Amino acid sequence: MILTHITDLVAICAKKGIRNVILSPGSRCAPLTLAFARHPDIHTRTASDERSAAFIALGMAQQLEEPVALVCTSGSAALNYYPAIAEAFFQQIPLLVLTADRPKEWIDQYDGQTIFQDEVYGKHIKGSFQFPNSISSPDDRWMASRISNEGINLAKKFPAGPVHINIPLKEPFYPEQQEQLLFPKDPHVFVFEQAQSILTDETLAKLKNRLGSVKRVLIIPGQSRPNSKLQEQLDLLSQNKNVVIVSDTISNFQSAESIGYHDHWLGNSGLTALLEPDLIISFGKSIISKGLKLFLRKTKASHWHIQEDGKAKDTFKRLTRILPTSPLPFFHWLNNNLGTQDQEFHQNWHDLDSKVESELPKVLKSMEFGEYNALYESINRVPSRSKIHVANSMAVRYMNFLGKREQEIICNRGTSGIDGSNSTAVGCTFTTKEIVTLITGDMAFFYDRNAFWHNYAMPNLRIILLNNHGGGIFRMIEGPSNQPELEEFFETKQKLSAQHLATEYGFFYSKVVNLSELESSLQDFYDDSLHPKILEIETSSPKNEEILKAVKAKISQALAKG
Amino acid sequence: MILTHITDLVAICAKKGIRNVILSPGSRCAPLTLAFARHPDIHTRTASDERSAAFIALGMAQQLEEPVALVCTSGSAALNYYPAIAEAFFQQIPLLVLTADRPKEWIDQYDGQTIFQDEVYGKHIKGSFQFPNSISSPDDRWMASRISNEGINLAKKFPAGPVHINIPLKEPFYPEQQEQLLFPKDPHVFVFEQAQSILTDETLAKLKNRLGSVKRVLIIPGQSRPNSKLQEQLDLLSQNKNVVIVSDTISNFQSAESIGYHDHWLGNSGLTALLEPDLIISFGKSIISKGLKLFLRKTKASHWHIQEDGKAKDTFKRLTRILPTSPLPFFHWLNNNLGTQDQEFHQNWHDLDSKVESELPKVLKSMEFGEYNALYESINRVPSRSKIHVANSMAVRYMNFLGKREQEIICNRGTSGIDGSNSTAVGCTFTTKEIVTLITGDMAFFYDRNAFWHNYAMPNLRIILLNNHGGGIFRMIEGPSNQPELEEFFETKQKLSAQHLATEYGFFYSKVVNLSELESSLQDFYDDSLHPKILEIETSSPKNEEILKAVKAKISQALAKG
Repeated sequence: MILTHITDLVAICAKKGIRNVILSPGSRCAPLTLAFARHPDIHTRTASDERSAAFIALGMAQQLEEPVALVCTSGSAALNYYPAIAEAFFQQIPLLVLTADRPKEWIDQYDGQTIFQDEVYGKHIKGSFQFPNSISSPDDRWMASRISNEGINLAKKFPAGPVHINIPLKEPFYPEQQEQLLFPKDPHVFVFEQAQSILTDETLAKLKNRLGSVKRVLIIPGQSRPNSKLQEQLDLLSQNKNVVIVSDTISNFQSAESIGYHDHWLGNSGLTALLEPDLIISFGKSIISKGLKLFLRKTKASHWHIQEDGKAKDTFKRLTRILPTSPLPFFHWLNNNLGTQDQEFHQNWHDLDSKVESELPKVLKSMEFGEYNALYESINRVPSRSKIHVANSMAVRYMNFLGKREQEIICNRGTSGIDGSNSTAVGCTFTTKEIVTLITGDMAFFYDRNAFWHNYAMPNLRIILLNNHGGGIFRMIEGPSNQPELEEFFETKQKLSAQHLATEYGFFYSKVVNLSELESSLQDFYDDSLHPKILEIETSSPKNEEILKAVKAKISQALAKG
Repeated sequence: MILTHITDLVAICAKKGIRNVILSPGSRCAPLTLAFARHPDIHTRTASDERSAAFIALGMAQQLEEPVALVCTSGSAALNYYPAIAEAFFQQIPLLVLTADRPKEWIDQYDGQTIFQDEVYGKHIKGSFQFPNSISSPDDRWMASRISNEGINLAKKFPAGPVHINIPLKEPFYPEQQEQLLFPKDPHVFVFEQAQSILTDETLAKLKNRLGSVKRVLIIPGQSRPNSKLQEQLDLLSQNKNVVIVSDTISNFQSAESIGYHDHWLGNSGLTALLEPDLIISFGKSIISKGLKLFLRKTKASHWHIQEDGKAKDTFKRLTRILPTSPLPFFHWLNNNLGTQDQEFHQNWHDLDSKVESELPKVLKSMEFGEYNALYESINRVPSRSKIHVANSMAVRYMNFLGKREQEIICNRGTSGIDGSNSTAVGCTFTTKEIVTLITGDMAFFYDRNAFWHNYAMPNLRIILLNNHGGGIFRMIEGPSNQPELEEFFETKQKLSAQHLATEYGFFYSKVVNLSELESSLQDFYDDSLHPKILEIETSSPKNEEILKAVKAKISQALAKG
């Protein structure tokens, strides 16, 4: 017999627009599993490794911009969710985390799967709720229904994020064989209405006054989802040469008007004076470019950060104003209120960008085969209307070197871990018919291999695996590359190839070790397929390091020539 | 340049007897990595998936009974440790968890890998410490050295457990190429001296008085490590027929004197009156047998729980006294103070046990091939001086059905998760030259496959994999087996075989589907080897369910005949 507060919860989820649930198997969570699986408006999938399950849910929710629910059994299952929950927290992705639990009188009594689940996600959760221990009065059911509403509202409310409801359950967990599972027809919901924070007239007047004394405005979009209306406002500002937009690969605000190759020159101190802004305006979340951050931290610029939730994020150590509003109305206002700026400033940035844009392909083509130029060749074949998920570590850095893309770029930059990239990309494939290309290194790929341990088709998944058999990034950065411990403790040499994994799961697989093999493999890589395809690009880590240095040197030379 | 408080920490670890560290790669943790790797008295290994790394450390510490240190980089790495940390907490296994962190001024500033690491393990850690943010005075160094001492002392102090030190680190992380890494010759340590809690004379007098009115004493050893002196005391009590010892497979107190087949009759209500104790004495941690717990919860017995840390664990709902002492002196005292008891009570339990012991092999041999009898055949070949790690879910239940073993039995019953069995067994192989046999189901095995993703030899590892392609346990329990959702959402059918994994890692592999293949594969399974061996026993889940039921019925018949 399934309890009324559980059918209430599921009916409330459905009524409030939750359409997708990722379940992980367990007995304690059976009432939740059955109720979600039997609700006509909810699509359930199951994944056995909770670490992957949670990143799959995150990958879906990131695209859908609505909460995806997670259901797991009691005990350490909830802890395996934690890496994805922290990622969702910092990336502001809505998740409804439903963990089944033993009734509280049974916790820590040497009896079965229990841990201390209540509030287990500490500071990495928007809210933590505890369902009533049993339903022994109408007030208990009211409380459960209220928590269900409040939890979903909180997950969705700006800034979105993960919310945890811990649900104690007693046996029996299963309905009798002929028992119908009845959902309330019209469960009680309360809606949290949308509101927006807009700057007051006094503030705008003050900002306008302040704008009168700036000449060099730099706009930095942090990690965001694509937004064509906002893109339009930004482009307009740049077309008038009144601002420079520096857009990292994860910003999803790359356009003909934006700077995209900045990683190639921002360490070059000779150029600093030409490029220094007097006002930085940023929005969105983090950026990739360490060069850009270091450059801006050395400037004397003021920094306005647009952040509707009002929290202080002083990434460039220059924060002067927090603008608690959303970017679109602000940039619309800016277009109408920003006077003519230093046109040379705009020209300087764009001259450098054009130069790199034209030189880089030639430089890359002149190099021996390695992951840098292999990735360059590969991403040029990615369909323009599609999505690219980039794993952390070197993959996302290369993408930032390689400049602007028209596809949506997704990357787990909330915690910047390598732990869930595969699963996040898998979740993304469940939300779209478009191609999803996962670009990943071998460490991230094998770390999260349980991403594929389920029975759902992913015909639109393509994996470009840069396999240099270790954490190649440690050879690229100066410190570890000089240590005798490099190979064992930093690169952590590993010899796996994706071939076995591909056979195991029935994925198409090809491996390339040179340019002609790569070109040949790419020819049909994006053709329709019933199964995912893996393109494994095997390179040597020391060679990759050489190429990275050589490209840097050649681009510097080209820029020096002017 | 490596900071003095880091070399202090490592020197203190060495001086206080920490000999093993599991490292996971990262740049933020480089000073810790280098200092541990270069210390002459410390053995370092590296494992890239932090979830596995932590269970490997746990598997080592469980055997060594001394803290093993863990080192990871900042960000979500620490969260991937969490399942093993919770397991260590409930199993009281000492771990020293060292997480590198960014300096606190950089947390949550959209700059790189940060989460809120301080106190991240909530209630599942014995202690949480935060190293000084920087060393700018001798007092900072003194504080770091004090925390290092205190953390290690706390991890070791009874009851042992995991302790977390979060360590903020600033660049530079690496010494110059020619720079020597200098450890303090005689780092300051303070020792936490051993003490023991002994019952007062008044208490003992009271207990003796109370013993005068009991006739049927049942001793339940919970999960423990083997202890021959304590075993001797228990055996003596039973030889005098004054107590009955009921020992689960994970108790490691199975002997000629103990009951080991109780799972076969404890659900049988006809026998209850013959078996009911008036006093239960328990020690150690949890037990497996659900039948035993349910049986004891229905008795009117008093329950004395020996627990030196004094916490209340009322597993049988009959708790009357907590004895805050250790089992050995108590049972020694009991041997001298327990009068003659009801000898028939002793006889009743042992008659049943002998009956099952003689019947079970015949019954199992009469069945078709399935995982129950395959496991029976297999474990009879396990070398007697060796260790068996049993995964949770069906594997450990079968082991409890199959009765007494002479090997040490290890199982992650702290949280009873399936998430780290492989890794824990791997950790165990690093501590012994004896054979370590991992007995596991397919869900636990594939969940934790990254256990093998490192470069260390495990010649003594043998894996008996009961592959029924899903969570077979869900078919065994009544509720889910009747639901239409059984296969997709409970069993979560999966088709993997260990063959690909074996090829990938160079393990020896054989797969058997019937008894003659099994017998043939077992012939050289325990021969010396350079590599681990996997014996995959493939069976059908519905067939296994039939066999389990049929064995139960036949054993019940045999017991009814008397």
